[in-house]
Amino acid sequence: MNQVGRDIPRLEVRAKVTGRADYTHNLRLPGMLYGKVFRATVPHGRIRCIETGAARAVPGVQCVVTGEDIRKLIAEPYYGPAFHDQPILALDKVRHVGEPVAVVLASDPHVAEHAAQLIDAEYQELPAVYDEVAAMQPDIVVHDMLKPAGTFADLKHLKGRTGTNIALDFHLRRGDVDAALARAERVIEHTFKTQQCLHLAFEPFVAVADPGDGVLTIHTSNQTPSFVRTEIARLFGWPENRVRVKVPYLGGGFGAKVYVKLEALVSALALLVRRPVKIALTMEEQFYMITKHPTTFRIKSGVGKDGRVVARACEVYWNGGAYADIGPRVTQKSGFTAPGPYDIENINIDSYALYTNRTPAGALRGFGIPQLVWAYESHTDLIARELGIDPIDFRRKNILHQNRPQASGTPMTDAAIAKVLDAIAARLAWNKKLDRGSGTVRRGRGVAIGFKASISPTTSVAIVNVAADGSTTLYTSTVDMGQGSDTAFAQIAAEVLDFKAEDIRIVHPDTDVTPYDMGTLGSRSLFHMGNAVRLAAEDARAKLQALAAQAGLPEGTNYPPAEVFKKRFGMQAGNVIGAASFVPTYKSPDAQTGLSDNVTPFWMVGGAGAEVEVDTETGDVRVLRLVNAVDCGKPINPGVARTQLSGAAIMQLGFTLSEAMQLDAGQVTNASLADYKIPGIRDVPPMENELVEAEQHTGPFGAKGLGESGTFGVSPAIANAIHDAVGVRIMELPITAEVVFRALRAQQGRPLEDA
Amino acid sequence: MNQVGRDIPRLEVRAKVTGRADYTHNLRLPGMLYGKVFRATVPHGRIRCIETGAARAVPGVQCVVTGEDIRKLIAEPYYGPAFHDQPILALDKVRHVGEPVAVVLASDPHVAEHAAQLIDAEYQELPAVYDEVAAMQPDIVVHDMLKPAGTFADLKHLKGRTGTNIALDFHLRRGDVDAALARAERVIEHTFKTQQCLHLAFEPFVAVADPGDGVLTIHTSNQTPSFVRTEIARLFGWPENRVRVKVPYLGGGFGAKVYVKLEALVSALALLVRRPVKIALTMEEQFYMITKHPTTFRIKSGVGKDGRVVARACEVYWNGGAYADIGPRVTQKSGFTAPGPYDIENINIDSYALYTNRTPAGALRGFGIPQLVWAYESHTDLIARELGIDPIDFRRKNILHQNRPQASGTPMTDAAIAKVLDAIAARLAWNKKLDRGSGTVRRGRGVAIGFKASISPTTSVAIVNVAADGSTTLYTSTVDMGQGSDTAFAQIAAEVLDFKAEDIRIVHPDTDVTPYDMGTLGSRSLFHMGNAVRLAAEDARAKLQALAAQAGLPEGTNYPPAEVFKKRFGMQAGNVIGAASFVPTYKSPDAQTGLSDNVTPFWMVGGAGAEVEVDTETGDVRVLRLVNAVDCGKPINPGVARTQLSGAAIMQLGFTLSEAMQLDAGQVTNASLADYKIPGIRDVPPMENELVEAEQHTGPFGAKGLGESGTFGVSPAIANAIHDAVGVRIMELPITAEVVFRALRAQQGRPLEDA
Repeated sequence: MNQVGRDIPRLEVRAKVTGRADYTHNLRLPGMLYGKVFRATVPHGRIRCIETGAARAVPGVQCVVTGEDIRKLIAEPYYGPAFHDQPILALDKVRHVGEPVAVVLASDPHVAEHAAQLIDAEYQELPAVYDEVAAMQPDIVVHDMLKPAGTFADLKHLKGRTGTNIALDFHLRRGDVDAALARAERVIEHTFKTQQCLHLAFEPFVAVADPGDGVLTIHTSNQTPSFVRTEIARLFGWPENRVRVKVPYLGGGFGAKVYVKLEALVSALALLVRRPVKIALTMEEQFYMITKHPTTFRIKSGVGKDGRVVARACEVYWNGGAYADIGPRVTQKSGFTAPGPYDIENINIDSYALYTNRTPAGALRGFGIPQLVWAYESHTDLIARELGIDPIDFRRKNILHQNRPQASGTPMTDAAIAKVLDAIAARLAWNKKLDRGSGTVRRGRGVAIGFKASISPTTSVAIVNVAADGSTTLYTSTVDMGQGSDTAFAQIAAEVLDFKAEDIRIVHPDTDVTPYDMGTLGSRSLFHMGNAVRLAAEDARAKLQALAAQAGLPEGTNYPPAEVFKKRFGMQAGNVIGAASFVPTYKSPDAQTGLSDNVTPFWMVGGAGAEVEVDTETGDVRVLRLVNAVDCGKPINPGVARTQLSGAAIMQLGFTLSEAMQLDAGQVTNASLADYKIPGIRDVPPMENELVEAEQHTGPFGAKGLGESGTFGVSPAIANAIHDAVGVRIMELPITAEVVFRALRAQQGRPLEDA
Repeated sequence: MNQVGRDIPRLEVRAKVTGRADYTHNLRLPGMLYGKVFRATVPHGRIRCIETGAARAVPGVQCVVTGEDIRKLIAEPYYGPAFHDQPILALDKVRHVGEPVAVVLASDPHVAEHAAQLIDAEYQELPAVYDEVAAMQPDIVVHDMLKPAGTFADLKHLKGRTGTNIALDFHLRRGDVDAALARAERVIEHTFKTQQCLHLAFEPFVAVADPGDGVLTIHTSNQTPSFVRTEIARLFGWPENRVRVKVPYLGGGFGAKVYVKLEALVSALALLVRRPVKIALTMEEQFYMITKHPTTFRIKSGVGKDGRVVARACEVYWNGGAYADIGPRVTQKSGFTAPGPYDIENINIDSYALYTNRTPAGALRGFGIPQLVWAYESHTDLIARELGIDPIDFRRKNILHQNRPQASGTPMTDAAIAKVLDAIAARLAWNKKLDRGSGTVRRGRGVAIGFKASISPTTSVAIVNVAADGSTTLYTSTVDMGQGSDTAFAQIAAEVLDFKAEDIRIVHPDTDVTPYDMGTLGSRSLFHMGNAVRLAAEDARAKLQALAAQAGLPEGTNYPPAEVFKKRFGMQAGNVIGAASFVPTYKSPDAQTGLSDNVTPFWMVGGAGAEVEVDTETGDVRVLRLVNAVDCGKPINPGVARTQLSGAAIMQLGFTLSEAMQLDAGQVTNASLADYKIPGIRDVPPMENELVEAEQHTGPFGAKGLGESGTFGVSPAIANAIHDAVGVRIMELPITAEVVFRALRAQQGRPLEDA
């Protein structure tokens, strides 16, 4: 292999470093209007009136648009990837603070912003529900009726359901949990919680819609251009080929920019005013768009004498906020991994997607898995501790091995769970004694491992275009948002075609140009699109060989493409189009669970090991060392893969130690980067990122996705290390100094007033 | 057939009628500079100095660029499709009045225009040559040395040739002309001439180059985006995938906008200043860009007792102007049809491409054929007249029939020569006597037929993209410049896929998006790209069928694509990419003649019949009726095809009766639409356009190109009708009233002073 496995710099570094890389924020179109959103100030209420006169009177304001104006254009102006529950602008009711209620349009964004402040809305306030467990009761109902998207067979039974906040309930039964628990040596139960936090891409949401000439063009900062095209076409009742979605460089996504976000709004506005419309959110406004699910996870395990887990019952409550977004799929598609990467005979899973009066929650780097791992790996540690077994030994006893059935029934294949665990143990020198610190500063260590299925079934299509001089261009709708997919795909295509990866040009997503891809999410791109790129390159290679044969060049010899074209056409002319689509083999999903026998095209495995220092007087936690290890199959570009690990770990570190949206009666009180603390460069601990090479038979050149794997183990590894250091157990994220301090005081029986 | 043969309106009518259709002229990019060209004022001279100081001093001028500045960027800044003889800006010498010498760049086009007027250049004037026959002598040499493009085997022997204006000489010998002439009953010889005229697209030349981020993007009004990409890449020594050429709607081309025109200049300027650069020519400047070849055609025929032409000798001199452009190919590829669509045993052809000190000449709707038909069909009429044979009977006797060898040796196949002649005769009711008029107004009628080979070998590639809802997008690099190719291709793809043509979306040429096409020229698109579209649609259809099989749908049934995708992927997801390339079968060309045994993928046949009224006192000619008939194979869209015929005939009518560039010492003295008279709506005579259906076995659904066929017969049909009406023979175009008046006076033996 000449190209795959090479540590080349990302193809776009030069463009990014020189500032030439083009982002949607830079786009200005002739006649373009800027929209500023006026947002709900109450968490739950019926709209009585929206006073827009003062805003309209501001010189330079083109118009003010409300939900009712949009209803004149689209009879059913609701969107969403799983449920069509989200209005383009609020209709009748608002369901969370910050919900878009109206938009001011003006040629000058400052005029629009000023005018938006003059809008006033009156609401009949309704009681609100914020907690996911409380939302199980139908005392306060966020949506009058469930509206699942019509296309999904497994959601059909939910249609029209009323009087509930449960958007989707997922249940899995394997073996006989009750009987196994009754027989078990010990039954251990805990409840863990996670907080609401968010993606905070450094490029906030932005979209531009251009009504154009028979074709609506949307320029957007989005991870799923193909999906946006389909969904916008559905909203307007148009064929897909009348909608064009273009995504230039993206300044981070992390799952925030999946499915429709601003695109329906700017499109509707552009069609109303017949001019291009741009909306760019501020950093603050991102707190009202999409977040990570807060969760409550009740986990109960029965353990045998031999240290084997014989039964596990999982109840997971996902706080989806005011609109479902992809939350129901998180509940279901991640829910089935709730028992962890362990070989357990008897399993119950009950997983609930709940509506509340918060900012909606969706996918965030891990699609719910970090919340699950947080619980089951904290729980695992507590069990080992209770049984007096070394936590690594305990995990080794219970790990799912090759071909053993996972909870869903799908056999585990090509998942290097044991190897990842071993790698972490080796890095931490687990068999050596740790320096425990002294005085008020105590040290401890902990590990955690997690796993994840990739979304299935999904499809990716790629085109490889070889020009007459052999120079090659690759077309995919995968969005390179910093993860390095452009570079990896160039390496794959170059490997097949025997070119140099750096010479391959990548065309960024444009649904008029680049073929279908389900989306850049769930770590699926390298596997799915990587396979499509490999197949498309093979198609191009076969066509080049056919051309050589037509040109009378002897078979079996490799000619440079430029020579083949010149020989065939008598000049530098022609080109070769290789195209291929990749869909992993799968079986039709069960109508009730939404799962198929072959639940994932590949498994992701990741883990972390942490050494921490805790100040017993202040509760301050310092991570001394963070080891991240993931199963990478065979890496396409090891350097880029390693930066994916560190990126994921740092992100999860923020969610572990500091990040949390603070609510006061539904109002976010820390909606700014000054108050909501993400890790800075000085917060990053010494890190070691290890790519654990393993088999992924079905991957392109043996590779698999790993964009999320680095998040899995971080939170419980740190909690487990804190427990190891100072003997307190934190059950809820984030683990701030205050939280640890309070726990220490409780442990010591000292009242807080002392402090 | 449901879609092919339908008379649907062109897909773009709505966009054009509402003014939404986007043209390159509309494009403004951030930071863009406007260039204004300073042009040579002498026809031939060495550049002594270019005084740019005053222009540079104009406030708002960014810079002034000369040929020497461009030489710093590109060592060999010469371009051209057949010869690399044309400098991007004049170097050392100027060779025609109007040649670009320098460019002023400014943010404001008016500033650039004003500043350009302040530039001054001094030349050492050289004697000039304007006439193509005079240019055969090397007394005045326009180019010191011939520089054929390196890629063409048949031009290699010309490389480095000095002391000549003959860019290319083409010679064909068939049988023994001298012997046959010696034996012939009669030998008849004439010399015919044509004038310099031009395309005058209503959208003048315009191009924008954007230096971009590693990829140079050129937005241009051009008929050959793929060629421009290759040629610009060659000039800069780049791979093709670093150059992107986009062509939106085009406001007419007619062969003017083929190959590189403004693109090399704007690209070089953009790279020099690292900003986007736009140059848009005025209508006047079009007179200095590219024209139609003036020609001198000496034709000599030997005729037998039976009225059969037994030998023909053709000497054609093509006045190519100062730069070769595609002229040498006209000389060669059209030259071999100089004897006309007749079955003649003994043939000599000598065809010369000549450099002179005029605006360059290239392709203009017919690629030289109308000049040839003008001569051979005037000549044919004169022979028939001399032999006393009815001109239609005489033609019928001599026509080339199916499988008989054409002059090149290639057998004539699928060329409905006799059918076209019959159609014209029938329309004119040739067997009925004509009302001859009375008094000073006399009437006459005439016919003419011509034929043309299409350019070969060339390749076209198409992509058909079927989205998950079945909506379909077609990608080709064919430029729809008004000929209706978008519509015809949609009909072809729709026929294959069983869709409605109106629902197919066409993506306009963008070399980053649409695959290779040799160019939109020579009436090749419907045949070549039409076949590629058909094949690509068949590829898509096969892939849809494969998808249906994968989805478990029973074979042999037709499912709507939306159903297939939904069944296969469980949702509206995925797409299908059909791709195909089409190259007509051909044999390698002869190194000396540049022709192969299979000289054309298909033959075009067209003819005209005219009834005219001539005022014998004023010389005024009124066309009473113009019949245009062409072999259309099987028409894809008869309505659009018919408008192609009338468009071609009206264009040729202008070249016949009024259009001529007037030169005074190399200066064009009528370079404006006020002085250079193209036909207005009131100049259009009553016309009948007949599509003669015939076999074209190799065409897509039996179709063939016909964009040029309507030009062939117009000029000689009118000249023949004038002769029929008043007995004078016009040997040179255009046939103005003055020309006819002078001829009538000469015939009557009356001196001109009478008038």
